[in-house]
Amino acid sequence: MSNKTVAGNFFEDFEVGQELRHATPRTVTEGDLALYTALYGSRFALNSSDEFARQLGLGRAPVDDLLAFHLVFGKTVPDVSLNAVANLGYANGRFGVPLFPGDTVTTTSTVTGLKENSNGKTGVVYVNSVGTNQRREVVLDYTRWVMVNKRDHAAPAPETVVPELPESVPADGLSLPDHLDLSAYDTTLAGSPFRWDDYEVGEKIDHVDGMTIEEAEHMLATRLYQNTAKVHFDQYAANSGRFQRRLIYGGHIISLARALSFNGLANACKVLAINAGSHANPTFAGDTIYAYSEVLDTIELPGRTDAGALRVRLVATKDHPAGDFPLKGDDGRYDPAVVLDLDLTVALPR
Amino acid sequence: MSNKTVAGNFFEDFEVGQELRHATPRTVTEGDLALYTALYGSRFALNSSDEFARQLGLGRAPVDDLLAFHLVFGKTVPDVSLNAVANLGYANGRFGVPLFPGDTVTTTSTVTGLKENSNGKTGVVYVNSVGTNQRREVVLDYTRWVMVNKRDHAAPAPETVVPELPESVPADGLSLPDHLDLSAYDTTLAGSPFRWDDYEVGEKIDHVDGMTIEEAEHMLATRLYQNTAKVHFDQYAANSGRFQRRLIYGGHIISLARALSFNGLANACKVLAINAGSHANPTFAGDTIYAYSEVLDTIELPGRTDAGALRVRLVATKDHPAGDFPLKGDDGRYDPAVVLDLDLTVALPR
Amino acid sequence: MSNKTVAGNFFEDFEVGQELRHATPRTVTEGDLALYTALYGSRFALNSSDEFARQLGLGRAPVDDLLAFHLVFGKTVPDVSLNAVANLGYANGRFGVPLFPGDTVTTTSTVTGLKENSNGKTGVVYVNSVGTNQRREVVLDYTRWVMVNKRDHAAPAPETVVPELPESVPADGLSLPDHLDLSAYDTTLAGSPFRWDDYEVGEKIDHVDGMTIEEAEHMLATRLYQNTAKVHFDQYAANSGRFQRRLIYGGHIISLARALSFNGLANACKVLAINAGSHANPTFAGDTIYAYSEVLDTIELPGRTDAGALRVRLVATKDHPAGDFPLKGDDGRYDPAVVLDLDLTVALPR
Repeated sequence: MSNKTVAGNFFEDFEVGQELRHATPRTVTEGDLALYTALYGSRFALNSSDEFARQLGLGRAPVDDLLAFHLVFGKTVPDVSLNAVANLGYANGRFGVPLFPGDTVTTTSTVTGLKENSNGKTGVVYVNSVGTNQRREVVLDYTRWVMVNKRDHAAPAPETVVPELPESVPADGLSLPDHLDLSAYDTTLAGSPFRWDDYEVGEKIDHVDGMTIEEAEHMLATRLYQNTAKVHFDQYAANSGRFQRRLIYGGHIISLARALSFNGLANACKVLAINAGSHANPTFAGDTIYAYSEVLDTIELPGRTDAGALRVRLVATKDHPAGDFPLKGDDGRYDPAVVLDLDLTVALPR
Repeated sequence: MSNKTVAGNFFEDFEVGQELRHATPRTVTEGDLALYTALYGSRFALNSSDEFARQLGLGRAPVDDLLAFHLVFGKTVPDVSLNAVANLGYANGRFGVPLFPGDTVTTTSTVTGLKENSNGKTGVVYVNSVGTNQRREVVLDYTRWVMVNKRDHAAPAPETVVPELPESVPADGLSLPDHLDLSAYDTTLAGSPFRWDDYEVGEKIDHVDGMTIEEAEHMLATRLYQNTAKVHFDQYAANSGRFQRRLIYGGHIISLARALSFNGLANACKVLAINAGSHANPTFAGDTIYAYSEVLDTIELPGRTDAGALRVRLVATKDHPAGDFPLKGDDGRYDPAVVLDLDLTVALPR
Repeated sequence: MSNKTVAGNFFEDFEVGQELRHATPRTVTEGDLALYTALYGSRFALNSSDEFARQLGLGRAPVDDLLAFHLVFGKTVPDVSLNAVANLGYANGRFGVPLFPGDTVTTTSTVTGLKENSNGKTGVVYVNSVGTNQRREVVLDYTRWVMVNKRDHAAPAPETVVPELPESVPADGLSLPDHLDLSAYDTTLAGSPFRWDDYEVGEKIDHVDGMTIEEAEHMLATRLYQNTAKVHFDQYAANSGRFQRRLIYGGHIISLARALSFNGLANACKVLAINAGSHANPTFAGDTIYAYSEVLDTIELPGRTDAGALRVRLVATKDHPAGDFPLKGDDGRYDPAVVLDLDLTVALPR
């Protein structure tokens, strides 16, 4: 017999300040680009066309920002959330340099908070994860917190530490690459005439289209990101679990919703920040995903006249077209149709 | 509320001569090549091997001609056929320069015909679509016509204009790249000893193999082409529609049939023209596709002794092996097993 | 009518010494890399990161050795096993130079043995297949034997020839690239602290994780390898066959098991040899695959102090977690849960 199999960390294995250097650095390729398009049908011109990207000052088309997110996130799973009960939230997610085919992403996390739950069986772990490229430039820096099982319910509770996290990333924390100049942006090729100035706080946009998810699709995606969480892959185990189904990786819904948001936000060409996010309800194969956006804020980007930012609530629903903009009930709980409530900051040309 | 979502054009939004510059230029990558192989299992040596392509004078393997078709076609959907009832036909499709990884395709369409139907609810729109690469060289130039809903049934009918279209692309309209020299073509590596001279008009070839389609596959393909037609993706909406099923993109069947045609036409290494085509019956996930070809004509290519062309009828069937070569019944209607009747011109070594 | 369709070889079409130059050379691309990751979720750092590979002396990340295996194997199908009843075994599989994106693989086989079965209806064909890159360097050299139908049961039996094959590839037949230097190997980035010296003969490792297979996935994989065996693709034909299901390509299970084996053998970064292998039971979509390994031997690599080899039995099970290490019953027959019994030699850093 052997003890070489990784069982993942339990709540009592974490301590504040601990650094986790995650395994399996990952080189992004043109293959990832094509698969990402095939999985979500994303149509943002900046990520689709090298020529469009060059027109704006980049060397070629960068990969979708959310692909960068998934690659960074995926690495953290074996060390952070293999024994997680739930992925509770995201905060302070700031995208740095764009990721291009050929770049290699490595992820390191630091434990920034711990809070044992009153039941003594689980606790919340806060990790700040930083993905960097081969030049050690930051690609993504974000915090998430997860509920993790304790191995031994009798283990003593650690001192409670909860990190301070901003409600949203402030304007001076948003990074639009210097050499990305949106003044030459072609709105016809991009698919929409609406620029930053055309959006208003409070505006709600129904993205109209629906996309049904198949088991093969969410598993291909989740493996592409080398995310190893068992609940997404093992139907035999699921048969005796809570849902009798494989759970879809929440990030798959994020990418679907973002791709759907093209229809109404086609010029939101760059994700600058993930301010917050909840996977409000689980999704399963066969569900049809719809999405809407609500403009929460319009943000001037310091020193930029070519581009502005919108803070947007991006909501995904299942088996429920989004035109009535569902969110929460009077009891403050999410509408059962809502599966994602994501708070993003995106850049648009002015 | 917002009006930023694109609802697509209705019949009365089109006018003859109108130019539609379609959104989302698309850079082709090695990822597209791999996905195309995974989706269809195509085995044409010219598209599979850089070495084989170099032997024939190209810098590397070009992408499958039908992938070029899908990318050009996909772009036209949001502007041309989002409100289409049916894709009625193709004509005069001429492939130009081959497409290589790294090339970026942009598509522009011109409305060349309009004809309102007698019911006053729909009309036929003819569009000539031209896909070009980043050097403005033509990749594909073809006409299709679609039946499109009117927004307002009371809107007046436009003047009827129906473009003149050739029954098939004539020999002098066929473009085999000058630097593609088939005299060094290796038939063993290509998988068949049969050259252009071995085929006869009237010859029918049963391609024997069958391929069952899964929902995940046709959706991956259709998204890869950034084709946004809702009927392919949204099962929730389909539940209350005519078929209660997601419809498979007709182009997916075209590519499947072409890949199946390898077994019998392995040396038909280049598609030169799409002369005509009908999606005779709808296909759904679970259908097994078979194919056969009938040689309609043998065509000498002007100035070429290394290559000749065949005009071929490529027929795909569902849940019906193609050995009895079904096509139409005595009433002139397509056999219910026939899903595709495509008229192609292909090049082979002599 | 036409006789241009390839029907594959029958038993009496083979003769000892015959050389089969297989069709469709195949250039490997970054797209194959990404699809391979999406299909199996493999996490070996050497195949995932160009930077990790460069640290060890390679120009970039090589593709997974088993992807090389599938590409070489796939080519042989139309000529060797289109009329095969069963894939009986593998032996003496030696991996040569690593395969990188841009390389083109061509496969040639030699018939090395023939043995008609006593029923007079089938026979066993032994082929030695060699895959080479564009510089004629050997990528993989292996023998497999398959049971093939006779076309004509009355055809006379050939002289029986059974090639001598080693039980396993000896140490001096193992090829670890000279320029691959594992002394700079980073075990943290690779995901496990366990080096060659930490493994013992007899040690069994439960790889714990399970992966459920969908129809779309195994068909995407099998087409990617341009493997044309009908049983994997045609549900309509399967409906009247033995299993009423599409059979999953055995190589798909090999790759799944290898990917699962990361959890416990993360540093087994290179497959050096396939010593033997049995597809013990068929697999179908919906099956959940688990895997375990048993260390059969520890092998010093001649002239290498940076790396050692392990001979490992890699067993895959279906719908049966592998923690009880099932293999064969008292009757010597495989446990019904066992679907793969593969004998590999892998390299690890010392």
